[in-house]
Amino acid sequence: MDAPLVETPPLPAALRELARQALAEDVGRGDVTSRLTVPEDALAVGRFVARGEVCVSGLDAARAVFHESSPRLRFTDHAGEGEVLPAGSVLAEVEGDARSVLAAERVALNLLMRLSGIATLTRRYVAAVEGTGARVTDTRKTTPGLRLLEKRAVRAGGGTNHRAGLDDGVLIKDNHLALAGGVAEAVRRARGAAPHLLKIEVEVESQEALREALRAGADAVLLDNMSPGEVRQAVEAARRTHPGTVIEVSGGVSFETVRAYAAAGPDLVSVGALTHSAPAADIGLDMEATQ
Amino acid sequence: MDAPLVETPPLPAALRELARQALAEDVGRGDVTSRLTVPEDALAVGRFVARGEVCVSGLDAARAVFHESSPRLRFTDHAGEGEVLPAGSVLAEVEGDARSVLAAERVALNLLMRLSGIATLTRRYVAAVEGTGARVTDTRKTTPGLRLLEKRAVRAGGGTNHRAGLDDGVLIKDNHLALAGGVAEAVRRARGAAPHLLKIEVEVESQEALREALRAGADAVLLDNMSPGEVRQAVEAARRTHPGTVIEVSGGVSFETVRAYAAAGPDLVSVGALTHSAPAADIGLDMEATQ
Amino acid sequence: MDAPLVETPPLPAALRELARQALAEDVGRGDVTSRLTVPEDALAVGRFVARGEVCVSGLDAARAVFHESSPRLRFTDHAGEGEVLPAGSVLAEVEGDARSVLAAERVALNLLMRLSGIATLTRRYVAAVEGTGARVTDTRKTTPGLRLLEKRAVRAGGGTNHRAGLDDGVLIKDNHLALAGGVAEAVRRARGAAPHLLKIEVEVESQEALREALRAGADAVLLDNMSPGEVRQAVEAARRTHPGTVIEVSGGVSFETVRAYAAAGPDLVSVGALTHSAPAADIGLDMEATQ
Amino acid sequence: MDAPLVETPPLPAALRELARQALAEDVGRGDVTSRLTVPEDALAVGRFVARGEVCVSGLDAARAVFHESSPRLRFTDHAGEGEVLPAGSVLAEVEGDARSVLAAERVALNLLMRLSGIATLTRRYVAAVEGTGARVTDTRKTTPGLRLLEKRAVRAGGGTNHRAGLDDGVLIKDNHLALAGGVAEAVRRARGAAPHLLKIEVEVESQEALREALRAGADAVLLDNMSPGEVRQAVEAARRTHPGTVIEVSGGVSFETVRAYAAAGPDLVSVGALTHSAPAADIGLDMEATQ
Amino acid sequence: MDAPLVETPPLPAALRELARQALAEDVGRGDVTSRLTVPEDALAVGRFVARGEVCVSGLDAARAVFHESSPRLRFTDHAGEGEVLPAGSVLAEVEGDARSVLAAERVALNLLMRLSGIATLTRRYVAAVEGTGARVTDTRKTTPGLRLLEKRAVRAGGGTNHRAGLDDGVLIKDNHLALAGGVAEAVRRARGAAPHLLKIEVEVESQEALREALRAGADAVLLDNMSPGEVRQAVEAARRTHPGTVIEVSGGVSFETVRAYAAAGPDLVSVGALTHSAPAADIGLDMEATQ
Amino acid sequence: MDAPLVETPPLPAALRELARQALAEDVGRGDVTSRLTVPEDALAVGRFVARGEVCVSGLDAARAVFHESSPRLRFTDHAGEGEVLPAGSVLAEVEGDARSVLAAERVALNLLMRLSGIATLTRRYVAAVEGTGARVTDTRKTTPGLRLLEKRAVRAGGGTNHRAGLDDGVLIKDNHLALAGGVAEAVRRARGAAPHLLKIEVEVESQEALREALRAGADAVLLDNMSPGEVRQAVEAARRTHPGTVIEVSGGVSFETVRAYAAAGPDLVSVGALTHSAPAADIGLDMEATQ
Repeated sequence: MDAPLVETPPLPAALRELARQALAEDVGRGDVTSRLTVPEDALAVGRFVARGEVCVSGLDAARAVFHESSPRLRFTDHAGEGEVLPAGSVLAEVEGDARSVLAAERVALNLLMRLSGIATLTRRYVAAVEGTGARVTDTRKTTPGLRLLEKRAVRAGGGTNHRAGLDDGVLIKDNHLALAGGVAEAVRRARGAAPHLLKIEVEVESQEALREALRAGADAVLLDNMSPGEVRQAVEAARRTHPGTVIEVSGGVSFETVRAYAAAGPDLVSVGALTHSAPAADIGLDMEATQ
Repeated sequence: MDAPLVETPPLPAALRELARQALAEDVGRGDVTSRLTVPEDALAVGRFVARGEVCVSGLDAARAVFHESSPRLRFTDHAGEGEVLPAGSVLAEVEGDARSVLAAERVALNLLMRLSGIATLTRRYVAAVEGTGARVTDTRKTTPGLRLLEKRAVRAGGGTNHRAGLDDGVLIKDNHLALAGGVAEAVRRARGAAPHLLKIEVEVESQEALREALRAGADAVLLDNMSPGEVRQAVEAARRTHPGTVIEVSGGVSFETVRAYAAAGPDLVSVGALTHSAPAADIGLDMEATQ
Repeated sequence: MDAPLVETPPLPAALRELARQALAEDVGRGDVTSRLTVPEDALAVGRFVARGEVCVSGLDAARAVFHESSPRLRFTDHAGEGEVLPAGSVLAEVEGDARSVLAAERVALNLLMRLSGIATLTRRYVAAVEGTGARVTDTRKTTPGLRLLEKRAVRAGGGTNHRAGLDDGVLIKDNHLALAGGVAEAVRRARGAAPHLLKIEVEVESQEALREALRAGADAVLLDNMSPGEVRQAVEAARRTHPGTVIEVSGGVSFETVRAYAAAGPDLVSVGALTHSAPAADIGLDMEATQ
Repeated sequence: MDAPLVETPPLPAALRELARQALAEDVGRGDVTSRLTVPEDALAVGRFVARGEVCVSGLDAARAVFHESSPRLRFTDHAGEGEVLPAGSVLAEVEGDARSVLAAERVALNLLMRLSGIATLTRRYVAAVEGTGARVTDTRKTTPGLRLLEKRAVRAGGGTNHRAGLDDGVLIKDNHLALAGGVAEAVRRARGAAPHLLKIEVEVESQEALREALRAGADAVLLDNMSPGEVRQAVEAARRTHPGTVIEVSGGVSFETVRAYAAAGPDLVSVGALTHSAPAADIGLDMEATQ
Repeated sequence: MDAPLVETPPLPAALRELARQALAEDVGRGDVTSRLTVPEDALAVGRFVARGEVCVSGLDAARAVFHESSPRLRFTDHAGEGEVLPAGSVLAEVEGDARSVLAAERVALNLLMRLSGIATLTRRYVAAVEGTGARVTDTRKTTPGLRLLEKRAVRAGGGTNHRAGLDDGVLIKDNHLALAGGVAEAVRRARGAAPHLLKIEVEVESQEALREALRAGADAVLLDNMSPGEVRQAVEAARRTHPGTVIEVSGGVSFETVRAYAAAGPDLVSVGALTHSAPAADIGLDMEATQ
Repeated sequence: MDAPLVETPPLPAALRELARQALAEDVGRGDVTSRLTVPEDALAVGRFVARGEVCVSGLDAARAVFHESSPRLRFTDHAGEGEVLPAGSVLAEVEGDARSVLAAERVALNLLMRLSGIATLTRRYVAAVEGTGARVTDTRKTTPGLRLLEKRAVRAGGGTNHRAGLDDGVLIKDNHLALAGGVAEAVRRARGAAPHLLKIEVEVESQEALREALRAGADAVLLDNMSPGEVRQAVEAARRTHPGTVIEVSGGVSFETVRAYAAAGPDLVSVGALTHSAPAADIGLDMEATQ
């Protein structure tokens, strides 16, 4: 297998484990069709072909799946993470023992189609907000087991990442506020005991709540479920009194409305659909026998 | 936690392990926001509310996530697997220690929204073919790690399941045929050595290939990438000469075309989009403090 | 380590994991005898020698164990899966660091002796039914943790495999019938919802039950606990009315009676003893120091 | 589930893990037959019945399997570890959800039949040497994954345990001697660095080697591949000069010869067949529907 | 087992897994001494007694170990996390089956002594800086496998936590600077792509480097290997020009020098010895037989 | 990666797993600082430098960590296990992809500093008893998860190992005696059923208890909590009547008192502090960019 790009922990171990679990899930006790019909010494080459325009993400996941199937398969990338290819392009090739390719192809495609689907959708959103100065960011609405890869697919599509989980940022939402006794108290508590490299973001649903959050010393505010007009008003108010505060918009953002929100002046617009509702990219695997 | 429906292996162990991995992925080293802002003894109740019409699937996955977060949370179903609820309905409730609810809510929602999304989409396809006699079936194009649950979601929506993996059916595709030396030889090999409870299905792309597969003794045929008209012609030919053969249609089937295919007479129409491109169901969690 | 035969998933991962667990179980915190008495740089070669005639199975399991002990050991097969060797033959050699060979030899032998024992016993049964047209098949009465390997050992000895587990075939036994409301109802339910590539087999203990199962549309029947004469009568009846039905015999089949059952005309005779009571093959490891 | 006997680590965790792995192996993606034919709310009771005389071992393994299948099943022992029951006896009962019982029965039986088979065979050997003063002991020739349970089954049958692995005793065999530079040097090295609670045993194949081992200070000697007459001569010599030394006999010991060896005066006779070739005990599970 | 304090993910799963691994490591194939000498039905109570003054941390880890040994043991806390107890105090009790207590006591003590050792040492450092306004914080120099628990022990002793790992903060050290092309460039890159809730800290070893980091827009600076006098000078400069910047001191801080550093004005003093060199707290377990 | 010393099971698997878990713990979702500031193709070399005199242990653990980070890093030892190096010495080098080195350095150092700390402390104790004929031995008071490595570090420092766990020796302590009905009964029980390669040691706290243990046939005695004078008296009595018995001293042994105890004549002095309170060795990693 040819050299992949440099991957640093935890990706190598995560890809290995994902490939192992996903193959086990699909293969079960063995690929009975190939065992019965394909000669043990048959060789083949498979080519991943884009059936439509695609922004590529996840070739290393496909590589890991074939490597888990058999370390003797040769996998060759023909595109880089985040590259945009027209329909008909070959993304990668895999070559070697035919049974090992056949056992892994579906799993490799399932990962590649999903991740490239996310990158491709993200790219559309990023294009939609071009020139506004706002960035498109993701959420924690990812597929269980695939967060690292899905967040990277968002970056491949030009988006940025929000928190990776519950431990790398303080984001005080309405649920916390109800239980914490209000914005001022919640921010005060967080400020006093949070590890010193974590910023504190507060979700607000009104101009008044925004003012309270800013006064309490929030490093960032999340404007939730506001109209573009309300967002613009909020942004102007915040920029005036607390110019360093990061401003994020969230809730009710669709492909149709994303530009209006972005144009209202926030730093970030977060979109759950990037990961929870991206249609799979249309990619196929064409195989042929080799010598 | 109230009694769930009877679950038999491997589901209980699979749900436990899925919940454990998914929570670990999201929580990381801990929910720092809740630890800093929510009192240790705060109690809360959360209600899962449908924001649109939804065909429910995966409440036991949500239950497993909360149980993994803390076995002392009480989770109560208000809907059964496969039930269809109007917008505004409460699907389930969870009650207990607020921090344990907050740590688990996103993961529980991620699973529930995906699985209910699949059930809801499947239900639309099933309704579209109503009266044709054909059944809608799934594929192996599922999310790595979630196959068992996604296949069950398809059943919840009224669909049927194709193979669960590479080991519970013989499905000879074009890739196998090229490597196996043709349809007759492939079926002969499979017939001679397959475990005696597995049927043999052959993918065909032309009327001629269909005839060859039927002559070779295939138990089932998969008509791939044919037009509805070609399917009708193939079905009529097969019914005439090999009346017991199962006939499946696949390839190029969208929501717009599914009825035309189903009306052409096959037993089954398989649709990859049921699992690889279902948009997430819109479900939220409303929390409030309790005593 | 020299190139093994092509192995496809899930075998490579399964062998690795089995080797890891089995070595851990035997070695515990370390081979204290070798650490204390054998020099760190000592080299050795070990030869696996058959002490009696043996039908070989499981050399790749032995290979995996030595590889897990140290990837620098060289393991060379001198026999193929299913090959029959006379007493005194060398099955394989392993060469390299003496401590690593010593740490792994017992575990490698334990696997090889058991699997070759199964292949050797199966071969005796297969020879006993030669010419009858019936095949010898295994059951699910295998050693927990070794099913895949034991089922392959049965194939190495010339037998065929029944279901690999509870999920790749529908086999309705007396216990199901009691709970399902009779043969007709059970078959009807199974027929209506089973994945379309699974056949339905019904266990019957009388000629009457046989007729009911055939009428209900069973794809296969299992004649349980009948005498050879009863089997012959059942086979004749079934062949007459339902010629395509697979007929299996089970229960009370020993090495002494297997030929009589096979001669009564069924397609398959299943024998639990192949896996649950096969004596270990007598194989030893002869070591000597090398340079 | 009723209270089992007290089990201390590592058994509880080991049984849980064994039950999990073994069930997963057999059930695969689910018990399709029961799902299709047995009503979800059906209840049943199953009774484990001895088909011949049996020395019981492993009921807690069966219990663990049913518990893993569903924690709501009730399992009741009717016999203790090591108890001898006549044919027709009920060893244990399990009651509850029928599907959960059906999913686990085969795995539970596979374990129980193997472990009781070992206990039953050991008991025959122990009876054969009765009155000689020698004890029957096992070897490391156990089934990978089942060592702890198989060694306990030997105790249940009245045998004693040799080393549990490579780390709880120093046993210098011919392979070590060749690499270590002779008996005296090997014992000297071991004596100098072994943890002070481990004894040192040396394998010898001649009277001369025996004398060398005793002179070198071995705590125990293993007389390998000697005839009963040679054993008697060796025992007399050793008792005369080194009265505290433990004497073990091994190699070529069958059920026919074990008494002759035991009568020759050693402390222990070790028998590999106890674990590597014990036929499965004949035990069945009789089920019936309950309310 | 009595109710523990509320623990939220990932602690419950982490404690379970830690207890399982640690018990397996110590118990190996079983507590042979207790099995041989303590009656199976013996009951006992054990009391954890402080042999010197101790700041308690880790009772829930001890609880988890006993629970893993046997879920029927009763464990009762007599002290809370972070509580300071005089010599002779009873920290907790465990009662039940004697063999299960004996199998777990050493592992429970090993964890409790280490974690309470860290809390006790941290408390000494915190007392040493009292009144200076600086907080004592930990580092990533923790025991592999115990980070979460050791960081909590630091909090129990009154310290605060630095980053929990490489993913919840940007800390640019000298090694990064060399590879990144200088402070300004490194901060610029981090600022442009870091998730928006992470602050950026830069390590500096001179007043000049400090000025560069502040100018580049670092949110926090780490003054490394400076004397207290140099720290004071740096703090004054930073407070003057960049009043909101967090200032941390690190390197060469011992118990003897910590107050001088704290008095020089930084927000935080980090001390590796809190976790890498804390002597174990002196705690014993006194057992006695019960009815 | 250059060839390490020969490692035999279970070390290779244990090191791999330890490296995997420890890296996952520290890296979490990724080294965000390096990803943001260090170019993807940057290369670096890191040198482990002793900041004080150090007795080396654990370089293979460091090697395993870097290998897990990236198999393409080159790690070169410059010292052997147990070697003593002066301050300023380079213990090892690692070279390759800079991000992969940075992701692993802290974990590698954490292991190396702890293990070398234990070896260095042990060496001081061993030097303190030089010439007395007594050996310094460890206890089971090790860090959960690191026992094998910490016990090896003790050997590297010149100490010897006591039991590795609860299964490789019979050590009857006061807690067992209370539950077992006295010394004579406890030894009798153990003698009758213990595997024949395990010795039996009894803890005694008085001269009278010593006499009882010796009379009962203990193979070894542990003199607990006696003064050096009491130890001398006990040793003389035991040597007179039971000259082959192993004598160990334990309890209240510090660096100040160890020589007095050793000089009193026992075979072994066991010291818990070797593993539970050894300060970390002072070792740093100096990195620089390469081409």
